Amino acid sequence: MTATESAATIDLDAVAELAAQLRVDSIRSSTSAGSGHPTSSMSAADLLAVLITRHLRYDWDQPHLPVNDHLIFSKGHASPLLYSVFKAVGVVSENELLNDYRRFGQRLEGHPTPILPWVDVATGSLGQGLPDAVGIGLAGKYLERLPYRLWVLTGDSELAEGSIWEAFDKASYYKLSNLVVMADINRLGQRGETDVGWNLEEYQRRMEAFGARVLTIDGHDLTAIDKAMSTAEDTSGSQPTVILAKTIKGKGFSEVENRNGWHGKPFPEDMAERAIAELGGVRSITVRGPLPEPAEPGPEPEKPETAPAPLAAPKPSATPPVYEVGAKVATRKAYGDALVSLGTRDDRVVVLDGEVSNSTFAEEFTEVYPNRYFEMFIAEQVMVAAATGIAVRGYRAFASTFAAFFTRAYDFIRMGSISGVDLRLCGSHAGVEIGADGPSQMALEDLAMMRAVHGSTVLYPCDGTSTVALVDEMARTPGISYMRTTRGSFPGLYPAGENFPVGGSKVVRAGDDDRVTLVGAGVTLHEALGAAEILADEGIVARVIDCYSVKPIDVETLATAAEATGRRIVVAEDHHPEGGLGSAVADALLAAGLQDLRLTHLAVRGMPGSGTGEELLAWAGIDADHIAAAARELVGG
Amino acid sequence: MTATESAATIDLDAVAELAAQLRVDSIRSSTSAGSGHPTSSMSAADLLAVLITRHLRYDWDQPHLPVNDHLIFSKGHASPLLYSVFKAVGVVSENELLNDYRRFGQRLEGHPTPILPWVDVATGSLGQGLPDAVGIGLAGKYLERLPYRLWVLTGDSELAEGSIWEAFDKASYYKLSNLVVMADINRLGQRGETDVGWNLEEYQRRMEAFGARVLTIDGHDLTAIDKAMSTAEDTSGSQPTVILAKTIKGKGFSEVENRNGWHGKPFPEDMAERAIAELGGVRSITVRGPLPEPAEPGPEPEKPETAPAPLAAPKPSATPPVYEVGAKVATRKAYGDALVSLGTRDDRVVVLDGEVSNSTFAEEFTEVYPNRYFEMFIAEQVMVAAATGIAVRGYRAFASTFAAFFTRAYDFIRMGSISGVDLRLCGSHAGVEIGADGPSQMALEDLAMMRAVHGSTVLYPCDGTSTVALVDEMARTPGISYMRTTRGSFPGLYPAGENFPVGGSKVVRAGDDDRVTLVGAGVTLHEALGAAEILADEGIVARVIDCYSVKPIDVETLATAAEATGRRIVVAEDHHPEGGLGSAVADALLAAGLQDLRLTHLAVRGMPGSGTGEELLAWAGIDADHIAAAARELVGG
Repeated sequence: MTATESAATIDLDAVAELAAQLRVDSIRSSTSAGSGHPTSSMSAADLLAVLITRHLRYDWDQPHLPVNDHLIFSKGHASPLLYSVFKAVGVVSENELLNDYRRFGQRLEGHPTPILPWVDVATGSLGQGLPDAVGIGLAGKYLERLPYRLWVLTGDSELAEGSIWEAFDKASYYKLSNLVVMADINRLGQRGETDVGWNLEEYQRRMEAFGARVLTIDGHDLTAIDKAMSTAEDTSGSQPTVILAKTIKGKGFSEVENRNGWHGKPFPEDMAERAIAELGGVRSITVRGPLPEPAEPGPEPEKPETAPAPLAAPKPSATPPVYEVGAKVATRKAYGDALVSLGTRDDRVVVLDGEVSNSTFAEEFTEVYPNRYFEMFIAEQVMVAAATGIAVRGYRAFASTFAAFFTRAYDFIRMGSISGVDLRLCGSHAGVEIGADGPSQMALEDLAMMRAVHGSTVLYPCDGTSTVALVDEMARTPGISYMRTTRGSFPGLYPAGENFPVGGSKVVRAGDDDRVTLVGAGVTLHEALGAAEILADEGIVARVIDCYSVKPIDVETLATAAEATGRRIVVAEDHHPEGGLGSAVADALLAAGLQDLRLTHLAVRGMPGSGTGEELLAWAGIDADHIAAAARELVGG
Repeated sequence: MTATESAATIDLDAVAELAAQLRVDSIRSSTSAGSGHPTSSMSAADLLAVLITRHLRYDWDQPHLPVNDHLIFSKGHASPLLYSVFKAVGVVSENELLNDYRRFGQRLEGHPTPILPWVDVATGSLGQGLPDAVGIGLAGKYLERLPYRLWVLTGDSELAEGSIWEAFDKASYYKLSNLVVMADINRLGQRGETDVGWNLEEYQRRMEAFGARVLTIDGHDLTAIDKAMSTAEDTSGSQPTVILAKTIKGKGFSEVENRNGWHGKPFPEDMAERAIAELGGVRSITVRGPLPEPAEPGPEPEKPETAPAPLAAPKPSATPPVYEVGAKVATRKAYGDALVSLGTRDDRVVVLDGEVSNSTFAEEFTEVYPNRYFEMFIAEQVMVAAATGIAVRGYRAFASTFAAFFTRAYDFIRMGSISGVDLRLCGSHAGVEIGADGPSQMALEDLAMMRAVHGSTVLYPCDGTSTVALVDEMARTPGISYMRTTRGSFPGLYPAGENFPVGGSKVVRAGDDDRVTLVGAGVTLHEALGAAEILADEGIVARVIDCYSVKPIDVETLATAAEATGRRIVVAEDHHPEGGLGSAVADALLAAGLQDLRLTHLAVRGMPGSGTGEELLAWAGIDADHIAAAARELVGG
């Protein structure tokens, strides 16, 4: 049967046929691939059939239309269902669905990614699609001020992820009535029953406690689904909505319905045939749903008060802040200054922070552009996810917290790189330099963590001028970029207006008779300069390089310096020995084919306690004295 | 006034005096240090005063007594309060409290760590103490079966962390009636009001929805606190209890009470004097609370059914499983086999998994030792935290999930290293080798992430025999150890009984005329062997090293090989280029002072999609053909 139906005429019998087709195609695609999650797809087919025919306001021919609704599969493993939807609306062919799914080099990947124009964010790591959608919802309500809705399909297993509850908390705090969660409660996780099973009242209670409006339905009753979606479409309220759907895993095929042991298993061919027969056979229905109404941006909505009234709001200046050479400033402070300046020049800059904006200095932006700031409270996962969603809508999202606490959001950063999104992250309070608070607050693995992210940019400025310049660079750098800032204040080195290209470095001390190269970044750049003074008094001339761009790193300058100084190099970093600056320098010089390196790598090799920054830098062996001693040894030997 | 009070006689007036002392000492210690969080300490002083005098059953002279209660400061920044408690019970002197707090080299660090014998786990990264306590609670109820209680002090800001809700979910699922949370709801976060403020009903609703019994009180009413704690002590129920305490930040000093802007700020000396005067002056009260009753382990409680009944439970064998050389087995399968064998020999082995035990093969242990297995569902943060708490109680906790999903718990792994706890983590589905599921499921940063953890051990076996041996090694390795396992099956290389010491490697192919060294681990070790075959056919003899111990790495064998093969080395890893195996090899050889390295590093430098494992390994340039080509180039040039 072939039929093209339009939204105006499609009745629920036709929707039922479509749902059957979605099930059949989920089975066909995964069986053909020999891989995939058909039963997880089958439980949500009715929800999607009703959604795409009657409620998702989306122009499939114009996926980037600003007024389009958004459909996000937080349960990304139900990709057969999502791709079957794409086929049903006619943007993916039957051939592609059956022959390209999960195949090498093809766009219908095992879990959806934005290689597909109808996909906003990569999913597959559970508990992320919903927090990402919170970001898009924030953009829709407060930034774009367009009436599009977010329709997020979650599974039930993923509701155990804490990030889901961070998302609900922020969705209700920020009154995201544009957010509709379709929760596919099919009871069965990967290896057995979920912790809550079919106890829908428990889920309802939790979601309502977190501020959601919950509509509990039979997830296979098309009338009930349709009614719930109509109710959900009313965005005049202030709550996100959950359509809490009791469903059956593998619905539609008696051999697997509600049976454990079929998660993530494609049906063998003979079994697939039986399933398709039971479902009524292959269909070739093409449908389109409603189109979005044209809309202009609405008035600015009232935003929850997230910061105390500023005592004295500084006049925002578009000119980048200027720091005097020699004047002490903390790079974390310069970050805050830079955001204001950048945000004045670029009204697409949006800032998020995790309850520490007075420490990261994101608060300066808060005070002058509160409408472009989103307080995320102590919830780094949803902070990074929201930044992702906001960035997806074309804004330049900067998110900050203590560098150590970005480890809380590493899976979100990882998925952000898979999404190809532009994220600008700033982690303050790097290293042992922070002093008395002790190791829980010290970032000592962040350079390694961020370098290992595909396509990332890792920046570590040592003074105010370079910080400001690099914040501007981040604003135009694609992918995941990360800046590490320092708690303490250090003297300005560079005059205003100097350029700091990504991938560059600064040679801050050099001469023709340099006998050793000292490489540092952030606090250790200052220590290296101190070491150079000590060595100079002893008649040893040292070249000093500010390696502010840890990734990509300035191979050329490092190689030139190494060659000029007899391959004698000391690298010092306020970071563990693995994967950070020293590793980056070594990788670079080896790749450049340099022979005969004499590299001494100073890093934090013990477990720090409390103390002053100076005491801890000395204890870690990364201060001026230790750098000088290492250099002395290289030169002497 | 000096008074030593015993539990039998201490009345609430005396408790009030103690509370005042705790406030005074919190102020004195932080003012002396010029650093710290007095106002965050002052809000919880009444709670702690009642707790330690009347309810915490703890022998301060025997901190490791098995029947002791446990006190955990999830709000670790209230360390002044915790240390003031230690002084009040007489285990820390006034001199230490005033002169050593936050000082270099001293044990009273800015945030508490187990350097102190009365501290179980390091805290300071918010939202972690409570999930850690869930682990200790699991040990207490199901493993040790002792009646001790967990008393956890949380702040309110940290209740925004998703991990808190993962903890509540597991605490109620596992019926941890031994867990009492004292929630200090003082309304003010670091930079302003929290998202929920003093809306205690909202917190209550959320906590009750997550299965807790909630007792809402005025957190400064000693009678109410005492009554709530008495109620909480009744562990005959099945729910964790929350004492939800409305408190005032800075309580006791009018200049800061309930005022924003004083988070994390010590009082200047003159201000401290005024505060102490208002609080009634310095006290020197020493108290002791009730001692725990002696107890023997109780009967095994009923455990929630977490896994379907096993179809046919294999007879557990204490003999390590044996794999035939040449027979294909997946290292993830061997991990499962190894756990059963190890768990039979060692009844302190406990296993946790995150809803993927049929993929990680932890399920094999589940089926034979369900009483030592804890299903944590899709909640990696609480999984690692619970493993931490269980390990703290002296068990050998092994936790597994997909390697990619350990990125969700990186902050917990980081804090685990600060705690000095022994964690055994196994991440399956490493690299592009997994194939069709695509990048969301592929671990490509995990070697970097885990190498950067202080004191970690990183293992990556290539066959069944080495996997089993290394699981045994993990069981006796202190600190954080991590094993990376592979999805696909590969031929066994090593005969049963061979040793695989941590820090070692295996030279699997070697001769006197080796012209190039090929280094791999896991899947790339097999590819390297394939490359060696290809090269042999061309008359190029290659040495092949199985670098199964990525950290610590076998510098000696690598250096010897490098020297023997003209410094020509190809390293291949199924991982991003930064911070992984290639980085470890480079670091090692540079540190060994090797000159003139000709190192070619093959790694995953692009963003993978779906495909078969073979297709993706070839695409990534890390398969046998590419390794051979790289070797050929080194030898040729």
